[in-house]
Amino acid sequence: MSKPTPLSGFPELLPAQRAVEQQVIDTLRSTFELYGFAGIETRAVEPLDQLLRKGDTSKEVYLLRRLHETSEEGHAGMGLHFDLTVPFARYVLENAGKLEFPFRRYQIQKAWRGERPQEGRFREFAQADIDIVGRDVLPFHHDVEVTRVMVDALTRLSFLPAFRLQVNNRKLIQGFYAGLGLEDLDEVMRIVDKLDKLPVEKVHQMLVDEAGATSEQADRVLSLATIRTGDDSFVAQVRGLRVSHPLLDEGLDELAALVRGVADLTSDRVRVEADLSIARGLDYYTGTVFETRLDGYESMGSICSGGRYDALASDGKITYPGVGISLGVSRVLVPLLARTGLTASRSVPSAVLVALADEDSRPASEAVAAALRARSIPCEVAPTAAKFGKQIRVAERRGIPFVWFPQADGGHQVKDIRDGNQVDADPSVWTPSPEDLRPQVVPGA
Amino acid sequence: MSKPTPLSGFPELLPAQRAVEQQVIDTLRSTFELYGFAGIETRAVEPLDQLLRKGDTSKEVYLLRRLHETSEEGHAGMGLHFDLTVPFARYVLENAGKLEFPFRRYQIQKAWRGERPQEGRFREFAQADIDIVGRDVLPFHHDVEVTRVMVDALTRLSFLPAFRLQVNNRKLIQGFYAGLGLEDLDEVMRIVDKLDKLPVEKVHQMLVDEAGATSEQADRVLSLATIRTGDDSFVAQVRGLRVSHPLLDEGLDELAALVRGVADLTSDRVRVEADLSIARGLDYYTGTVFETRLDGYESMGSICSGGRYDALASDGKITYPGVGISLGVSRVLVPLLARTGLTASRSVPSAVLVALADEDSRPASEAVAAALRARSIPCEVAPTAAKFGKQIRVAERRGIPFVWFPQADGGHQVKDIRDGNQVDADPSVWTPSPEDLRPQVVPGA
Repeated sequence: MSKPTPLSGFPELLPAQRAVEQQVIDTLRSTFELYGFAGIETRAVEPLDQLLRKGDTSKEVYLLRRLHETSEEGHAGMGLHFDLTVPFARYVLENAGKLEFPFRRYQIQKAWRGERPQEGRFREFAQADIDIVGRDVLPFHHDVEVTRVMVDALTRLSFLPAFRLQVNNRKLIQGFYAGLGLEDLDEVMRIVDKLDKLPVEKVHQMLVDEAGATSEQADRVLSLATIRTGDDSFVAQVRGLRVSHPLLDEGLDELAALVRGVADLTSDRVRVEADLSIARGLDYYTGTVFETRLDGYESMGSICSGGRYDALASDGKITYPGVGISLGVSRVLVPLLARTGLTASRSVPSAVLVALADEDSRPASEAVAAALRARSIPCEVAPTAAKFGKQIRVAERRGIPFVWFPQADGGHQVKDIRDGNQVDADPSVWTPSPEDLRPQVVPGA
Repeated sequence: MSKPTPLSGFPELLPAQRAVEQQVIDTLRSTFELYGFAGIETRAVEPLDQLLRKGDTSKEVYLLRRLHETSEEGHAGMGLHFDLTVPFARYVLENAGKLEFPFRRYQIQKAWRGERPQEGRFREFAQADIDIVGRDVLPFHHDVEVTRVMVDALTRLSFLPAFRLQVNNRKLIQGFYAGLGLEDLDEVMRIVDKLDKLPVEKVHQMLVDEAGATSEQADRVLSLATIRTGDDSFVAQVRGLRVSHPLLDEGLDELAALVRGVADLTSDRVRVEADLSIARGLDYYTGTVFETRLDGYESMGSICSGGRYDALASDGKITYPGVGISLGVSRVLVPLLARTGLTASRSVPSAVLVALADEDSRPASEAVAAALRARSIPCEVAPTAAKFGKQIRVAERRGIPFVWFPQADGGHQVKDIRDGNQVDADPSVWTPSPEDLRPQVVPGA
């Protein structure tokens, strides 16, 4: 077999890079658990009719079939999930009788989309989702809760550039459009959502041509979309546009409560702002909507998005409202690893390489390793009894900081190969510093 | 949408069951890392020509295609991986220049097979693989190493029934068959591998009819397969069969070294035995082979299998020998969860539910939660300001052991709802016992 080449859109990581990804996932998981979110996984496969409920992504679904499929089999109707929301909604309905509501869950899994690969857009990618789902009702304070949890999680990823969480509310914008007398609210929202791609004049034209707005209505729609504040002063700005509608009032109240509810989380790395241009396109959100952008990586688009669904799932009798937010783990990490050289301090978990005087003394070196492992110190024994200089280079190439030398007289010495410092040591007592015990994330450029 | 039904062969877990699976994965991972194994993940998708290299599993592969695939695209040639060995071999070749050898890796991921679902056999399942791969050479002591690592990992899964690791060596059996004068060694091995499914007379008949053995040769082939010892006394028993061949000698030496090398790991829960009937069917092993059976769950078959490949991968110039072992995580866990009621002590990570006196005091309850989380105590605030009795039942249904009551006078009390004991507490000091901090695995029947 000749050397295989990578598959476009299916990123894979080298061991040191995977160590970074694993630490990211560990941090997300432990943060979500601190807030009482339970981890679940769903199968990779869903029936096609489930996957195609959101019409606009149908083209991106990967279908499955068995190599030697016979006609009686039903696999023609199965595909890989393209997000974690559709499978979660199905899981909630399927297991509703066995779950406690409000149900907080996190889910960190791969998803697949057959779209054209580009930076930050992959055909296979990891996502980390949190959602809170209620039975019949879900009070608004959970919108504040998911926001706080995700901001806390992102803040703990210390290598992440500063970021901006942008929040808006569908009730606010739809109420505003309705108060203006516009009728096709979804179409207006769809067109306004193009503001980050098209010039404002073009969007104005589309509002008139495609959404039946007057030029004056289009002006005010666009005025709303320019409002962006770091506190609840957007309320006064919207009021200044002199539109009124009960849904608009509800949306303003919710968004103001959200912005005030997370104000204490802002810092030099974190900004939370009401951005009234955020609409989340065709997704079925009904209230709060979120997007998140990394400073200096605006071309990545939103790395962490979500919102409130009045009906995440429904079986016809009972409705399950939900609010959630989804972090594109691969979407953030793969470009950061590539562009900045972000990596781990070593490519193996081992903190220590136990040297080998000769092949006959392998049991003695293994005994040292066993003593270290009994105290949770990851280590490995040198593969061969090469010259010590060569064994040290084995450690060096892997980034292992310490080499352990069992002595002929039964004593022990350990060398920090970074500074060459070599000291007597007892395998039942010696402990590396906490920073040396595990591979550390090393920031890139 | 009506209530969805589970999909046969695609097991999904409820939150408390998933907590058990997560702890299993955490235990495996931390054990593998203690021995210096680096974690990697590979993409779910491989080119079909890679997947079909092992002829006998071709029928089980799931192929992918995009819903609206155009003829120019190459997806017709892609499928989901059915194990973690094929993708790992490809990863080694693809990244050989960037890896350090011997390369120790673990990989805990899902795999997919389109076979007929039955107990312990799924269409989607999680596996945990460890392998050590060398460049050109890989000394035999690594065979002992992977065995010890996996036995250590399995031993740490305290809920697991007692188990038996069965080891054999392909050189031993092939050398024996060659020494007997048999020619189609693979065919003999394939037939002997059926001993666990067919009566011995039938296997004897097949050896004569299909592998060209004389009745006397078949007798001795079957005699070899009956040898099973907990120490290296199998060597004398094989010698007693009076067959000699250089490859047989090599296999006997290796297998004896392996059995001696892991003898200290045996206990009342762990037996390691040389079982000369183990052949691992059509897999391409070239030396050591492993299987593992759980006492009382023999019908599951081997839950943990593997062996030595002289050429795990090769690019024509450089060969990468490997030795590895693969644990069927879903295969073990899903039936154990279903049959024994194995579960976690609670369905949420929260150790504490912070009660809510009324909706206006939510900030005060959130402040308690924040103080607990700052000291890594997972908790959640009650969803509504229901009567305290109802809030306690919210905790009870989730298995949360403690309910926290902020007092009107600014003081605090915490109640252990299992014994009703309620005491004064300070949110900046109070700590639950380590057993109550995280959900615990609760053994089933």
